[in-house]
Amino acid sequence: MDRHFDEELIRLKEMVSTMASSVQETISLSIKGLKERNLDILKKVYDNENKINRLQMEIDEMVLMILALRQPVATDLRFITSCMKINNDLERIGDEAVNIAERAEFLIANPPLKPLIDIPRMAEISQGMVKDAISSLLNKDGQLAQGVRERDDEVDDLRDQIFRELLTYMMEDQKNVKRAMELISIARYLERVGDHATNIAENVIYMVSGKDVRHPTMKL
Amino acid sequence: MDRHFDEELIRLKEMVSTMASSVQETISLSIKGLKERNLDILKKVYDNENKINRLQMEIDEMVLMILALRQPVATDLRFITSCMKINNDLERIGDEAVNIAERAEFLIANPPLKPLIDIPRMAEISQGMVKDAISSLLNKDGQLAQGVRERDDEVDDLRDQIFRELLTYMMEDQKNVKRAMELISIARYLERVGDHATNIAENVIYMVSGKDVRHPTMKL
Repeated sequence: MDRHFDEELIRLKEMVSTMASSVQETISLSIKGLKERNLDILKKVYDNENKINRLQMEIDEMVLMILALRQPVATDLRFITSCMKINNDLERIGDEAVNIAERAEFLIANPPLKPLIDIPRMAEISQGMVKDAISSLLNKDGQLAQGVRERDDEVDDLRDQIFRELLTYMMEDQKNVKRAMELISIARYLERVGDHATNIAENVIYMVSGKDVRHPTMKL
Repeated sequence: MDRHFDEELIRLKEMVSTMASSVQETISLSIKGLKERNLDILKKVYDNENKINRLQMEIDEMVLMILALRQPVATDLRFITSCMKINNDLERIGDEAVNIAERAEFLIANPPLKPLIDIPRMAEISQGMVKDAISSLLNKDGQLAQGVRERDDEVDDLRDQIFRELLTYMMEDQKNVKRAMELISIARYLERVGDHATNIAENVIYMVSGKDVRHPTMKL
Protein backbone atom coordinates (compact mmCIF):
# COMPACT_ATOMS: atom_id res chain seq x y z
CA MET A 1 0.00 0.00 0.00
CA ASP A 2 2.80 2.46 0.83
CA ARG A 3 4.20 2.28 -2.66
CA HIS A 4 0.77 2.97 -4.15
CA PHE A 5 0.28 5.85 -1.76
CA ASP A 6 3.62 7.39 -2.75
CA GLU A 7 2.77 7.04 -6.41
CA GLU A 8 -0.61 8.64 -5.84
CA LEU A 9 0.95 11.57 -4.04
CA ILE A 10 3.37 12.08 -6.94
CA ARG A 11 0.47 11.88 -9.38
CA LEU A 12 -1.54 14.40 -7.33
CA LYS A 13 1.41 16.82 -7.34
CA GLU A 14 1.71 16.45 -11.10
CA MET A 15 -1.99 17.15 -11.55
CA VAL A 16 -1.87 20.28 -9.38
CA SER A 17 1.22 21.40 -11.25
CA THR A 18 -0.49 20.93 -14.64
CA MET A 19 -3.56 22.76 -13.35
CA ALA A 20 -1.40 25.66 -12.14
CA SER A 21 0.43 25.92 -15.48
CA SER A 22 -2.84 25.99 -17.41
CA VAL A 23 -4.22 28.66 -15.12
CA GLN A 24 -1.11 30.84 -15.47
CA GLU A 25 -1.17 30.42 -19.23
CA THR A 26 -4.81 31.43 -19.44
CA ILE A 27 -4.24 34.63 -17.44
CA SER A 28 -1.30 35.44 -19.76
CA LEU A 29 -3.47 34.90 -22.81
CA SER A 30 -6.26 37.12 -21.53
CA ILE A 31 -3.87 40.04 -20.99
CA LYS A 32 -1.93 39.40 -24.20
CA GLY A 33 -5.19 39.38 -26.17
CA LEU A 34 -6.18 42.68 -24.56
CA LYS A 35 -2.78 44.30 -25.11
CA GLU A 36 -2.38 43.13 -28.72
CA ARG A 37 -6.09 43.66 -29.42
CA ASN A 38 -6.26 40.14 -30.81
CA LEU A 39 -9.54 38.24 -30.69
CA ASP A 40 -7.93 34.91 -31.66
CA ILE A 41 -5.79 35.01 -28.54
CA LEU A 42 -8.84 35.78 -26.40
CA LYS A 43 -10.65 32.78 -27.89
CA LYS A 44 -7.91 30.52 -26.51
CA VAL A 45 -8.89 31.64 -23.01
CA TYR A 46 -12.31 30.04 -23.46
CA ASP A 47 -10.70 26.83 -24.76
CA ASN A 48 -8.41 26.71 -21.74
CA GLU A 49 -11.34 27.09 -19.41
CA ASN A 50 -12.67 23.67 -20.41
CA LYS A 51 -9.32 22.08 -19.73
CA ILE A 52 -9.06 23.77 -16.33
CA ASN A 53 -12.56 22.71 -15.32
CA ARG A 54 -11.81 19.12 -16.24
CA LEU A 55 -8.56 19.17 -14.27
CA GLN A 56 -10.37 20.60 -11.25
CA MET A 57 -12.78 17.68 -11.20
CA GLU A 58 -10.01 15.14 -11.68
CA ILE A 59 -8.00 16.58 -8.77
CA ASP A 60 -11.06 16.55 -6.50
CA GLU A 61 -11.76 12.92 -7.36
CA MET A 62 -8.11 12.01 -6.80
CA VAL A 63 -8.14 13.66 -3.35
CA LEU A 64 -11.31 11.89 -2.30
CA MET A 65 -9.94 8.60 -3.57
CA ILE A 66 -6.69 8.98 -1.62
CA LEU A 67 -8.52 10.07 1.55
CA ALA A 68 -10.89 7.11 1.34
CA LEU A 69 -8.43 4.39 0.34
CA ARG A 70 -5.21 5.43 2.08
CA GLN A 71 -6.58 7.24 5.13
CA PRO A 72 -3.55 9.50 5.47
CA VAL A 73 -2.70 11.32 8.71
CA ALA A 74 -0.50 14.19 9.93
CA THR A 75 1.50 16.03 7.24
CA ASP A 76 0.21 13.87 4.38
CA LEU A 77 -3.36 14.63 5.41
CA ARG A 78 -2.63 18.35 5.55
CA PHE A 79 -0.93 18.25 2.15
CA ILE A 80 -3.81 16.40 0.52
CA THR A 81 -6.58 18.58 1.97
CA SER A 82 -4.49 21.64 1.03
CA CYS A 83 -4.43 20.41 -2.55
CA MET A 84 -8.22 20.24 -2.52
CA LYS A 85 -8.59 23.81 -1.27
CA ILE A 86 -5.90 25.15 -3.58
CA ASN A 87 -7.57 23.40 -6.50
CA ASN A 88 -10.62 25.57 -5.85
CA ASP A 89 -8.55 28.75 -5.88
CA LEU A 90 -6.84 27.73 -9.12
CA GLU A 91 -10.14 27.08 -10.84
CA ARG A 92 -11.41 30.50 -9.78
CA ILE A 93 -8.27 32.14 -11.16
CA GLY A 94 -9.22 30.50 -14.46
CA ASP A 95 -12.67 32.10 -14.12
CA GLU A 96 -11.03 35.50 -13.67
CA ALA A 97 -9.17 35.00 -16.96
CA VAL A 98 -12.52 34.38 -18.66
CA ASN A 99 -13.91 37.53 -17.05
CA ILE A 100 -10.91 39.49 -18.32
CA ALA A 101 -11.30 38.06 -21.83
CA GLU A 102 -14.98 39.08 -21.90
CA ARG A 103 -14.14 42.68 -20.97
CA ALA A 104 -11.22 42.66 -23.41
CA GLU A 105 -13.57 41.69 -26.23
CA PHE A 106 -15.53 44.89 -25.68
CA LEU A 107 -12.40 47.00 -25.34
CA ILE A 108 -10.72 45.79 -28.53
CA ALA A 109 -13.93 46.43 -30.47
CA ASN A 110 -13.58 50.11 -29.53
CA PRO A 111 -10.75 52.67 -29.93
CA PRO A 112 -8.11 52.42 -27.18
CA LEU A 113 -8.71 54.77 -24.24
CA LYS A 114 -5.06 54.94 -23.19
CA PRO A 115 -1.85 52.91 -23.55
CA LEU A 116 -1.92 49.93 -21.19
CA ILE A 117 1.00 49.92 -18.77
CA ASP A 118 -0.23 49.35 -15.23
CA ILE A 119 -2.67 46.56 -16.09
CA PRO A 120 -0.02 44.34 -17.77
CA ARG A 121 2.28 45.11 -14.81
CA MET A 122 -0.46 44.11 -12.39
CA ALA A 123 -1.02 40.91 -14.38
CA GLU A 124 2.69 40.12 -14.27
CA ILE A 125 2.89 40.47 -10.50
CA SER A 126 -0.26 38.48 -9.81
CA GLN A 127 0.85 35.69 -12.17
CA GLY A 128 4.22 35.58 -10.43
CA MET A 129 2.34 35.21 -7.17
CA VAL A 130 0.37 32.25 -8.51
CA LYS A 131 3.58 30.63 -9.78
CA ASP A 132 5.39 31.04 -6.47
CA ALA A 133 2.36 30.01 -4.42
CA ILE A 134 2.24 26.70 -6.29
CA SER A 135 6.02 26.18 -6.05
CA SER A 136 5.72 26.79 -2.31
CA LEU A 137 3.02 24.11 -2.14
CA LEU A 138 4.91 21.51 -4.16
CA ASN A 139 8.21 22.14 -2.33
CA LYS A 140 6.55 22.75 1.06
CA ASP A 141 8.44 26.04 1.19
CA GLY A 142 6.92 28.30 3.83
CA GLN A 143 9.33 31.14 3.16
CA LEU A 144 8.40 31.36 -0.50
CA ALA A 145 4.74 31.36 0.52
CA GLN A 146 5.44 34.21 2.91
CA GLY A 147 6.91 36.22 0.00
CA VAL A 148 3.70 35.73 -1.97
CA ARG A 149 1.61 37.22 0.85
CA GLU A 150 3.83 40.27 0.97
CA ARG A 151 3.42 40.97 -2.75
CA ASP A 152 -0.35 41.24 -2.40
CA ASP A 153 0.05 44.84 -1.20
CA GLU A 154 1.86 45.71 -4.43
CA VAL A 155 -1.10 44.42 -6.42
CA ASP A 156 -3.53 46.40 -4.28
CA ASP A 157 -1.46 49.56 -4.68
CA LEU A 158 -1.42 49.17 -8.46
CA ARG A 159 -5.17 48.67 -8.46
CA ASP A 160 -5.64 51.91 -6.49
CA GLN A 161 -3.38 53.74 -8.92
CA ILE A 162 -5.34 52.38 -11.90
CA PHE A 163 -8.63 53.37 -10.26
CA ARG A 164 -7.47 56.92 -9.60
CA GLU A 165 -6.19 57.40 -13.12
CA LEU A 166 -9.31 56.00 -14.78
CA LEU A 167 -11.57 58.04 -12.54
CA THR A 168 -9.84 61.14 -13.97
CA TYR A 169 -10.55 59.91 -17.50
CA MET A 170 -14.20 59.36 -16.62
CA MET A 171 -14.57 62.81 -15.13
CA GLU A 172 -12.89 64.45 -18.11
CA ASP A 173 -15.26 63.15 -20.75
CA GLN A 174 -18.39 61.05 -20.42
CA LYS A 175 -17.47 59.22 -23.63
CA ASN A 176 -14.65 57.62 -21.63
CA VAL A 177 -16.89 56.19 -18.91
CA LYS A 178 -17.78 52.83 -20.42
CA ARG A 179 -14.22 51.94 -21.50
CA ALA A 180 -12.73 53.16 -18.23
CA MET A 181 -15.24 51.03 -16.34
CA GLU A 182 -14.22 47.95 -18.30
CA LEU A 183 -10.55 48.60 -17.51
CA ILE A 184 -11.42 49.05 -13.84
CA SER A 185 -13.20 45.69 -13.94
CA ILE A 186 -10.10 44.07 -15.38
CA ALA A 187 -7.99 45.58 -12.59
CA ARG A 188 -10.45 44.12 -10.10
CA TYR A 189 -10.23 40.66 -11.68
CA LEU A 190 -6.44 40.82 -11.45
CA GLU A 191 -6.73 41.90 -7.83
CA ARG A 192 -8.75 38.74 -7.24
CA VAL A 193 -6.05 36.65 -8.92
CA GLY A 194 -3.64 38.12 -6.36
CA ASP A 195 -6.14 37.33 -3.58
CA HIS A 196 -6.41 33.71 -4.69
CA ALA A 197 -2.62 33.39 -4.84
CA THR A 198 -2.50 34.81 -1.31
CA ASN A 199 -5.09 32.28 -0.15
CA ILE A 200 -2.99 29.50 -1.64
CA ALA A 201 0.15 30.83 0.08
CA GLU A 202 -1.64 31.07 3.42
CA ASN A 203 -2.80 27.50 3.08
CA VAL A 204 0.80 26.45 2.41
CA ILE A 205 2.09 28.31 5.48
CA TYR A 206 -0.59 26.61 7.54
CA MET A 207 0.29 23.24 6.03
CA VAL A 208 4.05 23.66 6.60
CA SER A 209 4.02 25.26 10.04
CA GLY A 210 0.64 24.24 11.40
CA LYS A 211 0.24 27.99 12.07
CA ASP A 212 -2.82 29.80 10.84
CA VAL A 213 -1.71 33.08 9.28
CA ARG A 214 -5.01 33.85 7.62
CA HIS A 215 -6.16 35.80 10.65
CA PRO A 216 -2.94 36.73 12.47
CA THR A 217 -4.61 38.67 15.28
CA MET A 218 -6.82 35.75 16.15
CA LYS A 219 -6.35 33.63 19.24
CA LEU A 220 -8.15 30.31 19.34
CA MET B 1 -15.50 5.16 18.30
CA ASP B 2 -18.81 5.28 16.41
CA ARG B 3 -20.52 7.24 19.14
CA HIS B 4 -17.68 9.76 19.23
CA PHE B 5 -17.77 10.04 15.47
CA ASP B 6 -21.52 10.72 15.49
CA GLU B 7 -21.09 13.37 18.16
CA GLU B 8 -18.31 14.99 16.19
CA LEU B 9 -20.43 15.10 13.06
CA ILE B 10 -23.25 16.77 15.01
CA ARG B 11 -20.75 19.25 16.46
CA LEU B 12 -19.35 19.97 12.98
CA LYS B 13 -22.86 20.64 11.66
CA GLU B 14 -23.53 23.01 14.56
CA MET B 15 -20.31 24.87 13.89
CA VAL B 16 -21.09 25.27 10.17
CA SER B 17 -24.60 26.38 11.07
CA THR B 18 -23.28 29.01 13.51
CA MET B 19 -20.77 30.18 10.92
CA ALA B 20 -23.53 30.51 8.31
CA SER B 21 -25.78 32.50 10.68
CA SER B 22 -22.96 34.89 11.52
CA VAL B 23 -22.17 35.37 7.86
CA GLN B 24 -25.81 36.07 6.97
CA GLU B 25 -26.11 38.49 9.85
CA THR B 26 -23.02 40.39 8.79
CA ILE B 27 -24.26 40.82 5.22
CA SER B 28 -27.59 42.10 6.62
CA LEU B 29 -25.77 44.58 8.85
CA SER B 30 -23.64 45.92 6.00
CA ILE B 31 -26.71 46.68 3.87
CA LYS B 32 -28.76 47.96 6.81
CA GLY B 33 -25.93 50.33 7.74
CA LEU B 34 -25.79 51.58 4.16
CA LYS B 35 -29.55 51.99 3.85
CA GLU B 36 -30.06 53.67 7.22
CA ARG B 37 -26.80 55.66 6.85
CA ASN B 38 -25.75 54.45 10.29
CA LEU B 39 -22.05 54.13 11.12
CA ASP B 40 -22.69 52.22 14.37
CA ILE B 41 -24.35 49.42 12.42
CA LEU B 42 -21.42 49.31 9.97
CA LYS B 43 -19.00 49.00 12.91
CA LYS B 44 -20.71 45.76 13.92
CA VAL B 45 -19.69 44.28 10.57
CA TYR B 46 -16.03 44.61 11.56
CA ASP B 47 -16.73 43.03 14.97
CA ASN B 48 -18.48 40.11 13.29
CA GLU B 49 -15.52 39.58 10.99
CA ASN B 50 -13.35 38.52 13.94
CA LYS B 51 -15.94 36.03 15.07
CA ILE B 52 -16.26 34.60 11.55
CA ASN B 53 -12.50 34.26 11.13
CA ARG B 54 -12.25 32.41 14.43
CA LEU B 55 -15.07 30.07 13.45
CA GLN B 56 -13.41 29.37 10.12
CA MET B 57 -10.23 28.20 11.84
CA GLU B 58 -12.16 26.10 14.35
CA ILE B 59 -14.10 24.34 11.59
CA ASP B 60 -10.91 23.63 9.64
CA GLU B 61 -9.29 22.15 12.74
CA MET B 62 -12.38 20.07 13.46
CA VAL B 63 -12.39 18.68 9.91
CA LEU B 64 -8.71 17.75 10.03
CA MET B 65 -9.19 16.16 13.43
CA ILE B 66 -12.13 14.04 12.24
CA LEU B 67 -10.30 13.02 9.04
CA ALA B 68 -7.20 12.01 10.99
CA LEU B 69 -8.84 10.25 13.94
CA ARG B 70 -11.96 8.68 12.41
CA GLN B 71 -10.82 8.09 8.83
CA PRO B 72 -14.31 8.38 7.39
CA VAL B 73 -15.23 6.96 3.99
CA ALA B 74 -18.02 7.24 1.40
CA THR B 75 -20.81 9.72 2.18
CA ASP B 76 -19.31 10.78 5.51
CA LEU B 77 -16.04 11.60 3.79
CA ARG B 78 -17.83 13.64 1.15
CA PHE B 79 -19.86 15.48 3.78
CA ILE B 80 -16.79 16.35 5.85
CA THR B 81 -14.65 17.52 2.93
CA SER B 82 -17.65 19.52 1.67
CA CYS B 83 -17.83 21.27 5.04
CA MET B 84 -14.19 22.27 4.64
CA LYS B 85 -14.75 23.76 1.19
CA ILE B 86 -18.00 25.45 2.18
CA ASN B 87 -16.28 26.91 5.23
CA ASN B 88 -13.96 28.75 2.82
CA ASP B 89 -16.89 30.16 0.86
CA LEU B 90 -18.63 31.31 4.03
CA GLU B 91 -15.53 33.11 5.24
CA ARG B 92 -15.24 34.90 1.91
CA ILE B 93 -18.88 35.99 2.12
CA GLY B 94 -17.91 37.58 5.43
CA ASP B 95 -15.11 39.39 3.61
CA GLU B 96 -17.62 40.74 1.09
CA ALA B 97 -19.66 42.20 3.97
CA VAL B 98 -16.53 44.01 5.15
CA ASN B 99 -15.95 45.30 1.61
CA ILE B 100 -19.55 46.55 1.50
CA ALA B 101 -19.21 48.25 4.88
CA GLU B 102 -16.05 50.06 3.72
CA ARG B 103 -17.81 51.42 0.64
CA ALA B 104 -20.88 52.27 2.71
CA GLU B 105 -18.74 54.36 5.05
CA PHE B 106 -17.77 56.59 2.13
CA LEU B 107 -21.33 56.75 0.83
CA ILE B 108 -22.97 57.74 4.10
CA ALA B 109 -20.38 60.50 4.57
CA ASN B 110 -21.70 62.06 1.32
CA PRO B 111 -25.19 63.12 0.17
CA PRO B 112 -27.25 60.22 -1.20
CA LEU B 113 -27.02 59.80 -4.98
CA LYS B 114 -30.38 58.07 -5.32
CA PRO B 115 -32.84 56.04 -3.24
CA LEU B 116 -31.56 52.49 -2.75
CA ILE B 117 -33.99 49.89 -4.03
CA ASP B 118 -32.20 47.38 -6.24
CA ILE B 119 -29.16 46.96 -3.97
CA PRO B 120 -31.22 45.94 -0.90
CA ARG B 121 -33.23 43.65 -3.19
CA MET B 122 -30.01 42.10 -4.52
CA ALA B 123 -28.79 41.66 -0.93
CA GLU B 124 -32.04 39.96 0.04
CA ILE B 125 -31.84 37.44 -2.79
CA SER B 126 -28.18 36.63 -2.26
CA GLN B 127 -28.69 36.21 1.49
CA GLY B 128 -31.61 33.87 0.83
CA MET B 129 -29.29 31.90 -1.43
CA VAL B 130 -26.71 31.56 1.36
CA LYS B 131 -29.42 30.48 3.81
CA ASP B 132 -30.83 27.84 1.47
CA ALA B 133 -27.39 26.64 0.40
CA ILE B 134 -26.50 25.91 4.02
CA SER B 135 -29.88 24.26 4.70
CA SER B 136 -29.30 22.08 1.67
CA LEU B 137 -25.91 21.07 3.11
CA LEU B 138 -27.18 20.29 6.58
CA ASN B 139 -30.24 18.40 5.31
CA LYS B 140 -28.43 16.87 2.32
CA ASP B 141 -31.19 18.30 0.14
CA GLY B 142 -30.08 18.32 -3.50
CA GLN B 143 -33.32 19.86 -4.73
CA LEU B 144 -32.99 22.90 -2.49
CA ALA B 145 -29.38 23.27 -3.67
CA GLN B 146 -30.60 23.17 -7.27
CA GLY B 147 -32.98 26.06 -6.51
CA VAL B 148 -30.06 28.12 -5.21
CA ARG B 149 -28.16 27.68 -8.48
CA GLU B 150 -31.17 28.86 -10.44
CA ARG B 151 -31.50 32.07 -8.44
CA ASP B 152 -27.96 33.13 -9.37
CA ASP B 153 -29.25 34.46 -12.69
CA GLU B 154 -31.67 36.77 -10.85
CA VAL B 155 -28.74 38.25 -8.94
CA ASP B 156 -26.76 38.72 -12.15
CA ASP B 157 -29.74 40.39 -13.85
CA LEU B 158 -30.15 42.81 -10.97
CA ARG B 159 -26.45 43.62 -11.10
CA ASP B 160 -26.73 44.44 -14.82
CA GLN B 161 -29.73 46.64 -14.14
CA ILE B 162 -27.87 48.49 -11.36
CA PHE B 163 -24.84 48.93 -13.64
CA ARG B 164 -26.91 50.37 -16.46
CA GLU B 165 -28.74 52.80 -14.19
CA LEU B 166 -25.58 54.02 -12.47
CA LEU B 167 -23.77 54.41 -15.77
CA THR B 168 -26.52 56.88 -16.75
CA TYR B 169 -25.95 58.84 -13.53
CA MET B 170 -22.22 58.95 -14.23
CA MET B 171 -22.71 60.20 -17.77
CA GLU B 172 -25.18 62.84 -16.63
CA ASP B 173 -22.90 64.62 -14.21
CA GLN B 174 -19.27 63.99 -13.35
CA LYS B 175 -19.99 64.83 -9.70
CA ASN B 176 -21.92 61.55 -9.59
CA VAL B 177 -19.02 59.38 -10.75
CA LYS B 178 -17.36 58.57 -7.43
CA ARG B 179 -20.59 57.72 -5.59
CA ALA B 180 -21.94 55.71 -8.52
CA MET B 181 -18.68 53.76 -8.65
CA GLU B 182 -18.97 52.90 -4.96
CA LEU B 183 -22.53 51.65 -5.48
CA ILE B 184 -21.36 49.58 -8.45
CA SER B 185 -18.69 48.07 -6.25
CA ILE B 186 -21.32 47.12 -3.68
CA ALA B 187 -23.39 45.45 -6.40
CA ARG B 188 -20.30 43.49 -7.41
CA TYR B 189 -19.68 42.36 -3.85
CA LEU B 190 -23.27 41.15 -3.61
CA GLU B 191 -22.84 39.35 -6.92
CA ARG B 192 -19.91 37.53 -5.36
CA VAL B 193 -22.04 36.60 -2.35
CA GLY B 194 -24.41 34.96 -4.83
CA ASP B 195 -21.46 33.25 -6.52
CA HIS B 196 -20.25 31.82 -3.22
CA ALA B 197 -23.75 30.59 -2.39
CA THR B 198 -23.84 28.93 -5.81
CA ASN B 199 -20.47 27.29 -5.16
CA ILE B 200 -21.81 25.95 -1.88
CA ALA B 201 -24.95 24.64 -3.59
CA GLU B 202 -22.89 22.94 -6.32
CA ASN B 203 -20.77 21.27 -3.68
CA VAL B 204 -23.93 20.00 -2.01
CA ILE B 205 -25.31 18.60 -5.27
CA TYR B 206 -21.99 16.87 -5.84
CA MET B 207 -22.01 15.52 -2.29
CA VAL B 208 -25.60 14.26 -2.49
CA SER B 209 -25.60 12.84 -6.00
CA GLY B 210 -21.92 12.25 -6.66
CA LYS B 211 -22.60 14.26 -9.83
CA ASP B 212 -20.42 17.20 -10.68
CA VAL B 213 -22.65 20.07 -11.78
CA ARG B 214 -19.99 22.72 -11.65
CA HIS B 215 -19.11 22.11 -15.27
CA PRO B 216 -22.15 20.45 -16.77
CA THR B 217 -20.82 20.20 -20.31
CA MET B 218 -17.72 18.40 -19.14
CA LYS B 219 -17.09 14.73 -19.76
CA LEU B 220 -14.37 13.07 -17.68
